[in-house]
Amino acid sequence: MPTIAVFDSGFGGLTVLRALLPLIPDARFLYLGDTARLPYGAKSQQTIARYALSSAAFLLAQGAQMLVVACNTASALALDELKAALPIPVIGVIEPGAQAANALARHPSSLLPLPSSVASVLVLATAATVQSNAYTKACAALGLTIHEKACPLLVPLVEEGWTDHPVTAEVLRIYLAEALAEAPSVQTLVLGCTHYPLIKPLIERVLRELGHPLHIVDSAAATAIAAAKVLPAFSSEGEAIPPTFYATDSIEKFQRLGSAFLGQALPEVKLIDLGG
Amino acid sequence: MPTIAVFDSGFGGLTVLRALLPLIPDARFLYLGDTARLPYGAKSQQTIARYALSSAAFLLAQGAQMLVVACNTASALALDELKAALPIPVIGVIEPGAQAANALARHPSSLLPLPSSVASVLVLATAATVQSNAYTKACAALGLTIHEKACPLLVPLVEEGWTDHPVTAEVLRIYLAEALAEAPSVQTLVLGCTHYPLIKPLIERVLRELGHPLHIVDSAAATAIAAAKVLPAFSSEGEAIPPTFYATDSIEKFQRLGSAFLGQALPEVKLIDLGG
Repeated sequence: MPTIAVFDSGFGGLTVLRALLPLIPDARFLYLGDTARLPYGAKSQQTIARYALSSAAFLLAQGAQMLVVACNTASALALDELKAALPIPVIGVIEPGAQAANALARHPSSLLPLPSSVASVLVLATAATVQSNAYTKACAALGLTIHEKACPLLVPLVEEGWTDHPVTAEVLRIYLAEALAEAPSVQTLVLGCTHYPLIKPLIERVLRELGHPLHIVDSAAATAIAAAKVLPAFSSEGEAIPPTFYATDSIEKFQRLGSAFLGQALPEVKLIDLGG
Repeated sequence: MPTIAVFDSGFGGLTVLRALLPLIPDARFLYLGDTARLPYGAKSQQTIARYALSSAAFLLAQGAQMLVVACNTASALALDELKAALPIPVIGVIEPGAQAANALARHPSSLLPLPSSVASVLVLATAATVQSNAYTKACAALGLTIHEKACPLLVPLVEEGWTDHPVTAEVLRIYLAEALAEAPSVQTLVLGCTHYPLIKPLIERVLRELGHPLHIVDSAAATAIAAAKVLPAFSSEGEAIPPTFYATDSIEKFQRLGSAFLGQALPEVKLIDLGG
């Protein structure tokens, strides 16, 4: 039974764990939300790398055999440092998201048949993820044209619980209209933040209202599939055991808001101190 | 020339420094934004106290003779620890805000004459400030009835630069209508977060639209006045020198957004490392 650690600055990465659970049912999962130091989205590369490394060291000490960085900001800004520092496989959310977007852009579903030459992708993400250019690099390597849009209000709106609210719809209209005005030919949208799957239905509705429906890539699901592909290296025996949850602060909020992200109630969340 | 340190989790406290500069022109000001660990608003008391103490220790080492905690969350959750740990006067924003609200509620301006028996106050603040009950305690000590409203979206909206935007107006309508439905008799409003002075004109407009104008207490201004009153203990000689600005992360953002809070361009901001 492999031990898979899932790491995020908060509870957003629970959308990745949610996608992993049915894909790798016989794994032992550890989830760490570095809630004392969230959000990572507005912090510098140096600071985010330091936070990610100390979080990863804790998970390694708990027996992690694979690390899934379920945080777009940390994937964008600290993945190279994590890969260099850790003796286990490390998977971020950027690369799988870009690959899924590429597959979708070139081999679209029946809904919106596209010529394969139109391979242009819109990424919604936090300011730090956009500034990192991580999606630009990952998409360029696949020959995809990319447009990125920083959406700083979406995480607070999701955390306010306004996932189906007129204000969130209006904010999405503003962000999406600005992005589509700059990139009118995009046909594929990547949700480049683990909070965004909770507003995917609202995003779809606003896009229809704007007369510009898009194929939507949920990078949480894409990342879970990428993680499952690494697993043949592990033995796959034994029974399913429930995940273990750690957080560095605000246990109560983690448990309360986290259930919406995980899609089920969270059991006990263990408070740990990583300093800082 | 006294050295006065002003501390906040970010640049919001610059609204307090802005009020202090003309009141105490002959002081040497140090400003520290603990931007690597912001926002404090969603973190636990223990974590916030630890952050505040390490920030204060740095400022003390720079020669601070008075500390103004220009952060509602840190004032609410860490003021006692700071006062106990520091050998210099420490002033928070809660107590001055409550006292200004009390004075206004009992001796209102000519605009909205009130019977002095109606001494009921509405406080808008972050979730952590509301949960701390710090305003409740400070107002109860003055015989004021208080209603608090957590407004988690206002800081992100101000930081997005949407200080005069339809979405911010709509969010304010929702928050204020909810608060006024629960507390229909309030006549005084305290801006319990240093970000909120930037949307004071919008708050006034929305209150007029709701047919419920309120006296507004800007706790930044009230705090500056309280700090100035402590000053006779210092000698007041010498010429004005420009403030020194420190931040623990994201210097560029601090400088760019901070100018709106300070009301003038920021000079160099020095990056410091407090660990964490």
